[in-house]
Amino acid sequence: MQELPLERAFTLIEPGPVVLLATSDGERDNVMVVTWTMVLGFDARFAICTGAWNHSWKALTRTRECVLAIPPADMIDTVIGIGTCSGAEVDKFSRFPLTREEARHDGAPLIAECLANIECRVIEVIARQDIVVLQGLAAWQDVRRADAPMLHAVGDGTFITDGGRLDRREAMRAKLPDGV
Amino acid sequence: MQELPLERAFTLIEPGPVVLLATSDGERDNVMVVTWTMVLGFDARFAICTGAWNHSWKALTRTRECVLAIPPADMIDTVIGIGTCSGAEVDKFSRFPLTREEARHDGAPLIAECLANIECRVIEVIARQDIVVLQGLAAWQDVRRADAPMLHAVGDGTFITDGGRLDRREAMRAKLPDGV
Repeated sequence: MQELPLERAFTLIEPGPVVLLATSDGERDNVMVVTWTMVLGFDARFAICTGAWNHSWKALTRTRECVLAIPPADMIDTVIGIGTCSGAEVDKFSRFPLTREEARHDGAPLIAECLANIECRVIEVIARQDIVVLQGLAAWQDVRRADAPMLHAVGDGTFITDGGRLDRREAMRAKLPDGV
Repeated sequence: MQELPLERAFTLIEPGPVVLLATSDGERDNVMVVTWTMVLGFDARFAICTGAWNHSWKALTRTRECVLAIPPADMIDTVIGIGTCSGAEVDKFSRFPLTREEARHDGAPLIAECLANIECRVIEVIARQDIVVLQGLAAWQDVRRADAPMLHAVGDGTFITDGGRLDRREAMRAKLPDGV
């Protein structure tokens, strides 16, 4: 994984991919699937929608650290497996083919099989709307797979994979932030 | 457009498509592009990230009504046009090939060229994070185009179109809400 400038990290989440969220409670690492995410700014701030019903909640809110990892489309069955069992019963990093790499800032691990990883810190919990606000601290991308298709959850058990890319950089130039 | 049960409205936003947001200030309708959106629940609650820097902000926060409309991928150049001019200077419904349809609950219009429309009410503004929380009131879908590709903004001036669909309904069954 190669470091991605933090001011480009929002481009990993803006397309709306399925995300794996890795945490560590200091004893065991865990990973969950998050399909409800949003960019909050060009400064690598993100929102996710989650709550105490997820086993990861305790580690996420106690350590205030997590990694957002973006799986490629061909990881779909691993993603489904991760999303349909609980870290309360299963050591997901043992059960699923996931390779951990050490993060720079976070106790939570990066996931080597993913296309990109964003180390994050929890900066606010808006409990009444189940929103957790994250500040990205560092971003990593497998540049050899920068164009590999991602997954988009529909929410009904089907998933859409990325198709073609359309380039409208020229038309958008005036609207793009610096460094992108 | 055919009415979509409200408990399925989240499936329109969960994949992370580019969204058009229509408002009306009572005198003029306006439309902007929103690429920072998130599902907040199976009950048709959504978050968007926006703020006073958008011309639509005044109408959105005064009327507390808007329509989220999902354009097909082949509307990309209309989307770019909408996103690179301001309703302060331009009557976007005159400039761009957009056909308005009357909403059931909202003063803001539905957009006939879009694949789906969700009528929404603003239920909370979390100003310090630029988050607006929306409650969906009714959803409409062009069922003849239910599988038409959508657009996903990367944020760097490029866009990803939908590719194939993968069906994992069986494996996900236990995790899906009723009515989906």
